[in-house]
Amino acid sequence: MSHKIVIALGGNALGNNLPEQMIAVKKTAKAIVDLIEEGNEVVIAHGNGPQVGMLQNAMTLLTRSDPEKYIPCPLSVCVAMSQGYIGYDLQNALREELLDRGIKKDCATVLTQVEVDPSDPAFENPTKPIGAFMTKEEAEHLIRERDYQVVEDAGRGYRRVVASPKPVAIVEIDTIRSLVESDHIVVACGGGGIPVFKTDGHHLKGAAAVIDKDFAAERLAEQLEADWLIILTAVEKVAVHFGKPDEEWLSNLTPVKAREYIEAGEFAPGSMLPKVEAAVRFAESGENRTALITLLEKARDGIAGKTGTLIHL
Amino acid sequence: MSHKIVIALGGNALGNNLPEQMIAVKKTAKAIVDLIEEGNEVVIAHGNGPQVGMLQNAMTLLTRSDPEKYIPCPLSVCVAMSQGYIGYDLQNALREELLDRGIKKDCATVLTQVEVDPSDPAFENPTKPIGAFMTKEEAEHLIRERDYQVVEDAGRGYRRVVASPKPVAIVEIDTIRSLVESDHIVVACGGGGIPVFKTDGHHLKGAAAVIDKDFAAERLAEQLEADWLIILTAVEKVAVHFGKPDEEWLSNLTPVKAREYIEAGEFAPGSMLPKVEAAVRFAESGENRTALITLLEKARDGIAGKTGTLIHL
Repeated sequence: MSHKIVIALGGNALGNNLPEQMIAVKKTAKAIVDLIEEGNEVVIAHGNGPQVGMLQNAMTLLTRSDPEKYIPCPLSVCVAMSQGYIGYDLQNALREELLDRGIKKDCATVLTQVEVDPSDPAFENPTKPIGAFMTKEEAEHLIRERDYQVVEDAGRGYRRVVASPKPVAIVEIDTIRSLVESDHIVVACGGGGIPVFKTDGHHLKGAAAVIDKDFAAERLAEQLEADWLIILTAVEKVAVHFGKPDEEWLSNLTPVKAREYIEAGEFAPGSMLPKVEAAVRFAESGENRTALITLLEKARDGIAGKTGTLIHL
Repeated sequence: MSHKIVIALGGNALGNNLPEQMIAVKKTAKAIVDLIEEGNEVVIAHGNGPQVGMLQNAMTLLTRSDPEKYIPCPLSVCVAMSQGYIGYDLQNALREELLDRGIKKDCATVLTQVEVDPSDPAFENPTKPIGAFMTKEEAEHLIRERDYQVVEDAGRGYRRVVASPKPVAIVEIDTIRSLVESDHIVVACGGGGIPVFKTDGHHLKGAAAVIDKDFAAERLAEQLEADWLIILTAVEKVAVHFGKPDEEWLSNLTPVKAREYIEAGEFAPGSMLPKVEAAVRFAESGENRTALITLLEKARDGIAGKTGTLIHL
């Protein structure tokens, strides 16, 4: 039975530098092609934490080297670069694994913008640290000149913090849909997508924000009317009462039960919590929609109902 | 009458930094949307000279700051980043100009690789300077450790040089074709495309090279079976006997005549020569294929036969 699957892949799973990425994408490609080989349509969204951090650092060094010529590079532009950086290796690893198995399918990376809402409460309280540590002088300069929000990290210097608003809509959704319909494996919404606001009706303006890749993948899965959302993580299943005598690894979870656990504070913010929240949102978005949270190498078994945590109505 | 047009846009026309780029893409978008408004299908290839230089410089600074963590960033990876950097602004400028005129069309940037031939004679004599000036020590280190080719630029230090091989095939051609067929405006082959070799049958490996964007656009136009290739440049028409009493601005040119002028050394290498060569190649590739060399703002008049240099059989 064939499914339409959106996969959310962690930026950390892609490595901290280029040699690590080139190894990581090969392992990733094998697991994803396992799903494709079974006849599923697959779209891949991915994170970019270490990669966009690397690019922000590089661009900060460039600005320092010639402040007259190079303004600080907006975060949205660094996300765009990171989509090229990651997409290039990821689509090639997929292409190669497909051809190794004799499967002829095109892989494509679509530069993707994701609309966020300027009135999203996340903008009132930016918490996501981004880029290199700065001196107090650099921090004060950027607060004054570019309206940055900055926090002090005890003993290590100052760091910019940005908001992590919820995705409203995938700007390039019709492009992605069109490629899926013409039998492509699509890499999209890299780094959660380039965050943009709509201004003046249709003008898009880059937002100083990062979008959680699990929420972006969820939005993408909804808009594509996928029947599976697979959120890959570092554990095989979601646990409650983690590390306690009554620890329980969950195989099946309804949105109602998941919300109870969320209310009870069972899932760590910035870690398992957004994954479970994204999974619940997808499961509730329609009939026959299942979210799966598991390890990369267990994705195929998870779809078959053998492992992982399945969230569905 | 509707045409399928591939446009080759200069990297220099896109500005040397982000504020310049944001202004340049608006002007570019107006001229391109003029063509779209007349019912033409348009695909845009673009250069990335200043942009990939900026990224190479930024990544070199990153490597210097932490050589243990960051190896020198391969040129192919910097081209991939530059496609995100430029495509993001270019597709948005197009999108906005289209919506301003009430035209509903999707714009998409496709990460594009272009295959080159490892036996291309260009690899025997790399001449294209890339990235930041280096000290003698840095240059020697990179020659030893990473097999770089380096030239000394009198008084200014050492610079890496790479080959500029001819494009053999656009790897993502089916993706681009599919999007054109579903009525998209496509930005592709940024920076002449990410240069790759085919190894082991189907594995793609990044090449230390840059592909001329006019040749990449020509290859793209051929593979898409376009009827027009528009090469945008800094002059309205191509001239022969330039700066001499018998200077002549050319309106029409056959491939045969163009080759005569090329033989006579009429066109400057690295400047007008590759443009005329790409134009000739396209004009010779089939019936009813016309190449136009002109200014951005004259593209529409050129298609109408009012100005520019037309090269056709």
